Amino acid sequence: MRRGTSQPLVLHDDRFFDANPSVRTAARALYEETRDLPLVCPHGHVDAALLAADDAFPEPAALLIVPDHYIFRMLYSRGVPLESLGVPSRDGTPVEQDPRRIWKRFAEHYYLFRGTPTGAWFDHELYDLFGVRVKLDADTADVVYDQIAERLATPEFRPRALYERFNIEVLATTDKASDSLDAHQALRDSGWSGRVVPTFRPDAVFRIAAPDWRAELSALAAAHGGPITDLSSFLGALQERRRFFRSLGATATDHAVVEPYTARLSPSDADELFRRALRGDATAADQMRFEAHMLIEMARMSVDDGLVMQLHAGALRDHNRAVAEQFGADKGADIPVQTEFTRNLTELLNAYGNDPRFTLVLFTLDESTYARELAPLAGHYPALRLGPPWWFHDSIEGMTRYRHQVTETAGIYNTAGFNDDTRAFCSIPARHDLSRRVDANFLGGLVARHVIDLDDARVMARALAYELARETYRFQTPAHSLDNGRPRLVSGGVSR
Amino acid sequence: MRRGTSQPLVLHDDRFFDANPSVRTAARALYEETRDLPLVCPHGHVDAALLAADDAFPEPAALLIVPDHYIFRMLYSRGVPLESLGVPSRDGTPVEQDPRRIWKRFAEHYYLFRGTPTGAWFDHELYDLFGVRVKLDADTADVVYDQIAERLATPEFRPRALYERFNIEVLATTDKASDSLDAHQALRDSGWSGRVVPTFRPDAVFRIAAPDWRAELSALAAAHGGPITDLSSFLGALQERRRFFRSLGATATDHAVVEPYTARLSPSDADELFRRALRGDATAADQMRFEAHMLIEMARMSVDDGLVMQLHAGALRDHNRAVAEQFGADKGADIPVQTEFTRNLTELLNAYGNDPRFTLVLFTLDESTYARELAPLAGHYPALRLGPPWWFHDSIEGMTRYRHQVTETAGIYNTAGFNDDTRAFCSIPARHDLSRRVDANFLGGLVARHVIDLDDARVMARALAYELARETYRFQTPAHSLDNGRPRLVSGGVSR
Amino acid sequence: MRRGTSQPLVLHDDRFFDANPSVRTAARALYEETRDLPLVCPHGHVDAALLAADDAFPEPAALLIVPDHYIFRMLYSRGVPLESLGVPSRDGTPVEQDPRRIWKRFAEHYYLFRGTPTGAWFDHELYDLFGVRVKLDADTADVVYDQIAERLATPEFRPRALYERFNIEVLATTDKASDSLDAHQALRDSGWSGRVVPTFRPDAVFRIAAPDWRAELSALAAAHGGPITDLSSFLGALQERRRFFRSLGATATDHAVVEPYTARLSPSDADELFRRALRGDATAADQMRFEAHMLIEMARMSVDDGLVMQLHAGALRDHNRAVAEQFGADKGADIPVQTEFTRNLTELLNAYGNDPRFTLVLFTLDESTYARELAPLAGHYPALRLGPPWWFHDSIEGMTRYRHQVTETAGIYNTAGFNDDTRAFCSIPARHDLSRRVDANFLGGLVARHVIDLDDARVMARALAYELARETYRFQTPAHSLDNGRPRLVSGGVSR
Repeated sequence: MRRGTSQPLVLHDDRFFDANPSVRTAARALYEETRDLPLVCPHGHVDAALLAADDAFPEPAALLIVPDHYIFRMLYSRGVPLESLGVPSRDGTPVEQDPRRIWKRFAEHYYLFRGTPTGAWFDHELYDLFGVRVKLDADTADVVYDQIAERLATPEFRPRALYERFNIEVLATTDKASDSLDAHQALRDSGWSGRVVPTFRPDAVFRIAAPDWRAELSALAAAHGGPITDLSSFLGALQERRRFFRSLGATATDHAVVEPYTARLSPSDADELFRRALRGDATAADQMRFEAHMLIEMARMSVDDGLVMQLHAGALRDHNRAVAEQFGADKGADIPVQTEFTRNLTELLNAYGNDPRFTLVLFTLDESTYARELAPLAGHYPALRLGPPWWFHDSIEGMTRYRHQVTETAGIYNTAGFNDDTRAFCSIPARHDLSRRVDANFLGGLVARHVIDLDDARVMARALAYELARETYRFQTPAHSLDNGRPRLVSGGVSR
Repeated sequence: MRRGTSQPLVLHDDRFFDANPSVRTAARALYEETRDLPLVCPHGHVDAALLAADDAFPEPAALLIVPDHYIFRMLYSRGVPLESLGVPSRDGTPVEQDPRRIWKRFAEHYYLFRGTPTGAWFDHELYDLFGVRVKLDADTADVVYDQIAERLATPEFRPRALYERFNIEVLATTDKASDSLDAHQALRDSGWSGRVVPTFRPDAVFRIAAPDWRAELSALAAAHGGPITDLSSFLGALQERRRFFRSLGATATDHAVVEPYTARLSPSDADELFRRALRGDATAADQMRFEAHMLIEMARMSVDDGLVMQLHAGALRDHNRAVAEQFGADKGADIPVQTEFTRNLTELLNAYGNDPRFTLVLFTLDESTYARELAPLAGHYPALRLGPPWWFHDSIEGMTRYRHQVTETAGIYNTAGFNDDTRAFCSIPARHDLSRRVDANFLGGLVARHVIDLDDARVMARALAYELARETYRFQTPAHSLDNGRPRLVSGGVSR
Repeated sequence: MRRGTSQPLVLHDDRFFDANPSVRTAARALYEETRDLPLVCPHGHVDAALLAADDAFPEPAALLIVPDHYIFRMLYSRGVPLESLGVPSRDGTPVEQDPRRIWKRFAEHYYLFRGTPTGAWFDHELYDLFGVRVKLDADTADVVYDQIAERLATPEFRPRALYERFNIEVLATTDKASDSLDAHQALRDSGWSGRVVPTFRPDAVFRIAAPDWRAELSALAAAHGGPITDLSSFLGALQERRRFFRSLGATATDHAVVEPYTARLSPSDADELFRRALRGDATAADQMRFEAHMLIEMARMSVDDGLVMQLHAGALRDHNRAVAEQFGADKGADIPVQTEFTRNLTELLNAYGNDPRFTLVLFTLDESTYARELAPLAGHYPALRLGPPWWFHDSIEGMTRYRHQVTETAGIYNTAGFNDDTRAFCSIPARHDLSRRVDANFLGGLVARHVIDLDDARVMARALAYELARETYRFQTPAHSLDNGRPRLVSGGVSR
């Protein structure tokens, strides 16, 4: 094994497919069915301003390393200081400013990503987007850097050009309830044909015990354009903001909680709780009750206005206080906890789970809930859909486990298709490609074991790659008709 | 992909086997070893009256759709109203009465079952039992309906004829403690050679906080033929009913709880609790303590009378209150919860877990307990056996996970073999066949990886398919000798 | 299937490798890369006195059956009394004394181990160490016994000769804080070249509510050579004992807890708690708080003295009281419980998790924590490494699940390599061989699916089999240079 000279970077055509020829043949056929379908991106964290401004991306380190916590947390876990990777500090600690040194440090440690989805996505980006043909390591760091930098300077690598090249059909951002949505408005005004829509995420104004709650509430009132003095005006403001989000194309809300606890308060209790919060007296226990109540309120509003409700449960944020204080949130230290859905969702599902106007998409970081709680719930309640494997589980093995543990009880038609959930715009095609390959491989395995036949598998592959996301998030447009001569659900557009 | 004309329905000979030729060859050989063994059905919900009366089955929808919550809950989850499927309402809401329309609606949505065990069982029934050779969908609904209806009208499709055709060796029903067992008595009196035995399930009289507890207790007293005025007469009645069940062939009891909590009360505490229940004052907490105590009492009686004790833990019943109120229990809305066995079973196992006269079979809906708690417990306590994957996990992937997670710690000989746990009589052969295929495939995988050899695998395959169920449930009869020239456990009859 | 004549015992060259030819070819190549690497044994329970005395082993039953709870617990679970296997009783109950009868009884039940790691290890020992070529069963019991007994009598089967034959590079024992380490001193004095090092395990003196705590504390004081009258002298004694352990080669400490709860007490609270313990008044709740505090104290000392800290969480000891009373601890009745790491470790990790001088190795019996909590934590905190699958999970399937659930989030470089954790000295090569095969197969699967290439896989295989254990436990010695022409981590010696 001679090392030290650069090795070729190869993306194998059959990557991520099972080595068994029967499975692989079926997986290939199914992947061919979906590889060129448009990308539906119903949940993610790309900044709309990126596409509104449509400026050239900066150099490689600032684009690919410094903002990507998937990447720098892994280096940090092996002892590489965040300062040395140029991660901006909140406290004025000086951090590395030389992008080439940052890139080199990353390249030296790129071996840490072997066998990880980040490694798979990154290789895909290097190869497919930037035309790199050598494996990234310390020796090749500079030449790869130069190649990426050169491409980024061309008009073909502007955000809107990439959006089109990526074949994105719709891209949802995630936005605070108080967000002005100026970038979304600017995009709409620009006349550009891309479809970029906001998502209503009001978490910050539900956290009544958080130190910044008053500031968040003020921002909401300002955006709303009216005072928030009690629960009733608070609910009114939320309702109005939802309307505003919808006016700019939103089809969904998003909610992040540690426990997916839902419980309705009496009107007087809810009112009293809100007053206590306004007085600055709300405790953590108060906040838990308030969040539980507001989730039910959000479901109620969704029944009215048709916004699909997303619930991401189970991440304990900012586990590492020193890192949070020095570098801020989202630095790779959000750690999952055990999560309970069956009892916690009882009230919300009993209130709205049977309502045909309502859709609730659940996301978990606790895989033990897939087969035990989530698939049985989704296999019963009409309103429920299971979101795709989230975050740490958005990976080859993670997606495979999800399909194996969910499908037998819920089928595929109670799942919500794929979403990339990324803030790394350039990684979007790699993420969808990996997902389509893994789903094709899952279905190919069923075909090879004669659980389903290839005809049915083709229909299922299209549903998983494209149609279920469109249906669940209510994105149906006439643009991409997939009618295959079979009847459709009126509400769905999912081929059978 | 041309659709709209009917496609052939095929049951592949190698279905559910791994696509790898070495695994498949071994799996085939092992399946050949077991495919024609008699069916032992130690736990299920078939109505004994069905076989006692031996009337012809009704038309297809009433037989296969309306009573099967595996089926209608999936359609419901995608928005098909239960009314439209003919599920009888409790509140007088009119429901669909036309069996053909029910059947058609089902056929239109049959695609939802792709990749599910229900789909696999149903295709097996269609093909093998009813001779259907086209895939079921909206277009073929009528012709398939007619074909099934025609067969159901023939004498060969009477329940007893099917029992014999299915090659059932013994079929256990599940019966309330107060059940008269008239159907069992009638079967015995009829002189028919089939072996149908009751199972003693006293849950209803242990739920002292339930609204219908007094009614259940009265029914027990009536069946017992004597008053129940205190704990002592309650225990006496139970003991006598167990004797009666045994007289009609019962070899087991069955108990369903949310938490498998066991704790012995002092005689005076138990007595006081029972009195409180008689006064109508029992709380949910009281009931939990009472159930915990009664499980230990049941174990004690099992030591005495030899009835095998089954414990099904972890289902939260009737999660969807609206459905429960309108349509009743068992409508697909029983949802699993996290379950703890190690601490909860401490008292019961310390009391009777070392007793060679006692057998306790555990069932879980929380797969995370397989490797963590259940296999270590069963790999230690002589009295313990692990029941097969239950309910949502009675599936290709579910059974595979079970074997992979249980075998290395507990071996196969601390598991209880298969049971079909079904109320759908016609699905029994399909369920056993799927189980035998999956176990053959599991063992074939071990053979192909040289973990075991094929000779040992053959012996293990027979144990899993037939002998372990007979041994665990104490069904040994001289009818089917499987002696293969090797010594046997005195108590077992499991070939080594 | 003709039985009753002895069947040949075969260890297939490709055992435990996937049957797919692409996976198997890659797995073989990777296994060849590691099969002859020295064995690093950083955690285990071999008695140092065994090697210090270097006496011949006793006959087969006393060596292989009577002391091995992996073996006798399985026979016990199927109704074989521990007395009949010669397990010594604490209460004077007579137990079987005839080693041949014990051996025969084991051989009769050896079929119970089919498909278990114990079976795989035992066959490996029989074949490779003792030259047995027939499958063990009732018929072959005597001839196998004789063959083993004959070998054990030869000089080549003395412990030190086996240590060398096994190619062990370093072997860590596990020792009480109060242990004199006489055997370690004797080994050092003997001039023998083997490297046997102690591990500091102070659990017994942290269990302040246990009946034997005072005795343990006295033993610690005696070993320390000074009185322990308060918390300060307690901490001083621990610090001095750690120094003593390090003087005899220790590189690590080990700690076993049910819950991995960590929380720092104020100095006055800690002091008061210790006084209460000295008065004999400590409760179970007190002990929990004390252990939580002492884990943080141990981390603090590790930062100072460089001892790697190991934490084994989640085993409920002595579940079966009757067995514990009659036969003592470690009889196969330690049963895992659900375990929580994210919240429990917050205080310890916030105190020392970012410190480059600190290494904490976590072990779990709750596999649901692999992907949910442990991999995310290890993929963030510099101090964390994940220990290999422990105990019930140290198996083909268990290791495979571990790699599948951990690698995508933490990579392989945040794992601690393999350890055999055994008291069965003769099983060490079998355990490392199985681990190397399973890891080679895991990596071979990634190669066959084109997730990584074979070059990278070779480097990873060496890391998993050898380098990561040396790096994590700070065993770097110049003896075995593995430099392959690539840069290394200064702190590590792990090839990239």
